[in-house]
Amino acid sequence: MSGKNILFLVLLLFIPVSVAAHFLEWGDLIVFITAGLAILPLAASMGTATEEIAVVLGPTLGGLLNATFGNATELIIAIVALKAGLVDVVKASITGSIIGNLLLVMGLAMLLGGLRHKEQTFQPIVARMNSAAMNLAVIAILLPTAMNFTSPGIGEKTLQNLSLAVAVVLILVYALTLLFSMKTHSYLYDVGVAETEALEVANHKPNMWFWSGVLLVCTLLVAIESELLVDSLEVATSKLGLTALFTGVILVPIIGNAAEHATAVTVAMKDKMDLSLSVAVGSSMQIALFVAPVLVIVGKIFGQPMDLDFSPFELVAVAVSVLIANTISSDGKSNWLEGTLLLAAYMLLGFAFYFYPVVDGIS
Amino acid sequence: MSGKNILFLVLLLFIPVSVAAHFLEWGDLIVFITAGLAILPLAASMGTATEEIAVVLGPTLGGLLNATFGNATELIIAIVALKAGLVDVVKASITGSIIGNLLLVMGLAMLLGGLRHKEQTFQPIVARMNSAAMNLAVIAILLPTAMNFTSPGIGEKTLQNLSLAVAVVLILVYALTLLFSMKTHSYLYDVGVAETEALEVANHKPNMWFWSGVLLVCTLLVAIESELLVDSLEVATSKLGLTALFTGVILVPIIGNAAEHATAVTVAMKDKMDLSLSVAVGSSMQIALFVAPVLVIVGKIFGQPMDLDFSPFELVAVAVSVLIANTISSDGKSNWLEGTLLLAAYMLLGFAFYFYPVVDGIS
Amino acid sequence: MSGKNILFLVLLLFIPVSVAAHFLEWGDLIVFITAGLAILPLAASMGTATEEIAVVLGPTLGGLLNATFGNATELIIAIVALKAGLVDVVKASITGSIIGNLLLVMGLAMLLGGLRHKEQTFQPIVARMNSAAMNLAVIAILLPTAMNFTSPGIGEKTLQNLSLAVAVVLILVYALTLLFSMKTHSYLYDVGVAETEALEVANHKPNMWFWSGVLLVCTLLVAIESELLVDSLEVATSKLGLTALFTGVILVPIIGNAAEHATAVTVAMKDKMDLSLSVAVGSSMQIALFVAPVLVIVGKIFGQPMDLDFSPFELVAVAVSVLIANTISSDGKSNWLEGTLLLAAYMLLGFAFYFYPVVDGIS
Repeated sequence: MSGKNILFLVLLLFIPVSVAAHFLEWGDLIVFITAGLAILPLAASMGTATEEIAVVLGPTLGGLLNATFGNATELIIAIVALKAGLVDVVKASITGSIIGNLLLVMGLAMLLGGLRHKEQTFQPIVARMNSAAMNLAVIAILLPTAMNFTSPGIGEKTLQNLSLAVAVVLILVYALTLLFSMKTHSYLYDVGVAETEALEVANHKPNMWFWSGVLLVCTLLVAIESELLVDSLEVATSKLGLTALFTGVILVPIIGNAAEHATAVTVAMKDKMDLSLSVAVGSSMQIALFVAPVLVIVGKIFGQPMDLDFSPFELVAVAVSVLIANTISSDGKSNWLEGTLLLAAYMLLGFAFYFYPVVDGIS
Repeated sequence: MSGKNILFLVLLLFIPVSVAAHFLEWGDLIVFITAGLAILPLAASMGTATEEIAVVLGPTLGGLLNATFGNATELIIAIVALKAGLVDVVKASITGSIIGNLLLVMGLAMLLGGLRHKEQTFQPIVARMNSAAMNLAVIAILLPTAMNFTSPGIGEKTLQNLSLAVAVVLILVYALTLLFSMKTHSYLYDVGVAETEALEVANHKPNMWFWSGVLLVCTLLVAIESELLVDSLEVATSKLGLTALFTGVILVPIIGNAAEHATAVTVAMKDKMDLSLSVAVGSSMQIALFVAPVLVIVGKIFGQPMDLDFSPFELVAVAVSVLIANTISSDGKSNWLEGTLLLAAYMLLGFAFYFYPVVDGIS
Repeated sequence: MSGKNILFLVLLLFIPVSVAAHFLEWGDLIVFITAGLAILPLAASMGTATEEIAVVLGPTLGGLLNATFGNATELIIAIVALKAGLVDVVKASITGSIIGNLLLVMGLAMLLGGLRHKEQTFQPIVARMNSAAMNLAVIAILLPTAMNFTSPGIGEKTLQNLSLAVAVVLILVYALTLLFSMKTHSYLYDVGVAETEALEVANHKPNMWFWSGVLLVCTLLVAIESELLVDSLEVATSKLGLTALFTGVILVPIIGNAAEHATAVTVAMKDKMDLSLSVAVGSSMQIALFVAPVLVIVGKIFGQPMDLDFSPFELVAVAVSVLIANTISSDGKSNWLEGTLLLAAYMLLGFAFYFYPVVDGIS
């Protein structure tokens, strides 16, 4: 039994432990930590299940499934937090997921891949398309934020309406990027696909019913653990001396994206950079163009209106992350120093969010 | 007779109609709409006349003529609006022309061209030079705006002086870009020129006097229609429930740039992307490096001082437009999704300007 | 005797003149000008001495020496100014050194090189690595500034702590870029190194002791002249009608960087663009990733705490300089118009700093 499997089983134990911690009232801090750890193996299982079902469904439907359920863990945590009224934490975790995927995941992948391989290459055209799509996402969250910043008297109603309109455009754009990558220009993405298939050679005929069951059970368990996590979040983080902003931007996304981290780094070390970047950048794009707008619409339905008016500092963080990630990825080559620069940018942002003073709403 | 010609003749009818609407007092809304429609065929005719005269004058003088009269319609509308004291509308229409050319025109060209041709290519060096020049233009309008934003007590006199100094630098830079593209490095632009010539094979010896007359008559008529348009603008747009900002940024530039739109899209569908981009980006550059600084100087002469202190939100809009257009064009390749991303960015900006609250001066 | 040598000897005369001006009380303006001129030949001699010693020490140790003492003049001026409590002037001169190297030095090199050679080329990978590193530097100074701007109540203590943390990360990143360029990926930089060697063919065996003595004497003299410069700075510049901001951003860096200017332009005219850019961009990187963080730490030790909270306008200036320099250098090609665009950007920034009103602290 590999170390990876043992770790998986140990982490699974945190599911009952976190539930016990909740009902036996062991304190919010312990609930928060154990629920956070319990989500890790569930997220990994959901990822595996989604990929297995995708193999059965074939490239088109399977691709769609991957594209919509790829960030299911984050979506569930966010919906639970939104229902609990923690709108600022949800926004912060969107910010943090984008930053984390572009800087931490891509940075680690390029660094660890680069330590083994002098220079790694990937499709520059795909990198540029992703850059352009991420620029659009930055524009989308920039506009409501800039509007509120430059014209402070603006009503919440207007921000809501603008955010809804923006959300609809983003979801349409996301659908079109899928059409592009899976249909009209799939040849550009062939390298990555070929690698994915190579990885899946071992398991030819996954059992659809088994994996659907796994997906269902894990989704339910993630939802439960998310409730525990969200309920204990405020007390636990204040005990740790952390602000809700830091928790939302740094801690929650690390829990939600752990599976992507592992995958992106593993394949990068095998010199499969196209696949590695498609996981890291693809996950960022999915958050920005799909998860965030879906949350705006879901919030509207729940009566917990969420707009896309981020705090100016979060906006700055997302904008600089996209900028440096684009600069580094646009030439289709990477090395260990480029990975280090991304990680250094992540560290700087981490420091900044750690020191950021408590302000309006986000406490 | 082609549909295009019929449309042209029908639109010409709006010249007498708009004049009648004005003198018979049919209401500002009708004057505004008919004058706007009347400008379309006049702008197209001015474009044709300028190109025909340019053929007679030869590449150098003709190129200069194109480079200075290419945006004559917008310049005339802007000067009329400036004389009428609508400084904010003029600034908004500069913003809107830059955005419209980079996002709407280039986006439509890449989308419609890309639907016919899987991948279209153009000179990446030219694209990069244009990117750098547009970055300079962003810096030029950023500095007065940032100065006013970060140091609110600054006097209007200082902004005026800074704007004049900036305007002189920009006009010099514009002259040098012409020297570069027409003299010292014209070989980089040869592809586009060859295409232009191919288009003009049919009409070998244009009649200089005829086209000069056309240019003169059209210029006069555009000036008259611009007066009607500007006089009726405020009442008409408020009847339509639109702010002056939205009108200036979205509506006026669409009227002023209709000819460029048609040309850029038509040649893109014929896979002549170098020509298409030189129309779209070239027009943006001309607005930013020539029209805007000329307006600053003209405003000084008219005693209607116009500075380059744009509203922060307009600045954000121009900056993000340049950013995404640069990202998409810098590799010298385009496809339908890239066109879609530009159009989506334009839609997002359109929404934002639609929802932007009425503020100081611009009402 | 060449004109260059005569100029050198004439400038050396300003050392005794400036000292005399100080003790005989000829007025602050004369002290300021003569001390500024006296620093020029000393900076040049320090540069020569550092390179000669580097030849003796061999590529690794010599590279390290160059990398740490390359901006010794600026570092000495800054430390003297910091001790005198002129924190804002120090910050302004950091801003100005980055801007000056990226726009003025690189612009002049590309313009004058481009007037002789139609198109000049350099390693695009190195240009991109440098771009990414400069982006990181922008992020580093952006975060404290943005934090203070978006959350005005923030304590100076927090800004200090954040700045110290940022400084440590930057110095680490700088060390890693040296490891990358001198050890793991030195082949990428071979072109530049080969050129450097070719330049040094004439002087095979420099006398280590002689040049160490030169370095020591010049360092002492630079420190003395810096004292004179800093002491007379405030009175002298106000007599000239200049603000401390303009002096710090434009004047001081021109004095401190004169040697780099001369080298970068000279080698560009010999079509050695790799070397030229490594001087210009390398000097910017050194200021941003080494000198600025060292000053933060030195300030802490001196009890003259310097944070990285720049004025928003300085931040804007650095950000746009990095942006346009990256756009122009990222393709590994240059021509005279690109040089002109950089110089135009420098002129625009110069105007802006000239007109910038006197505000808080920086008077």
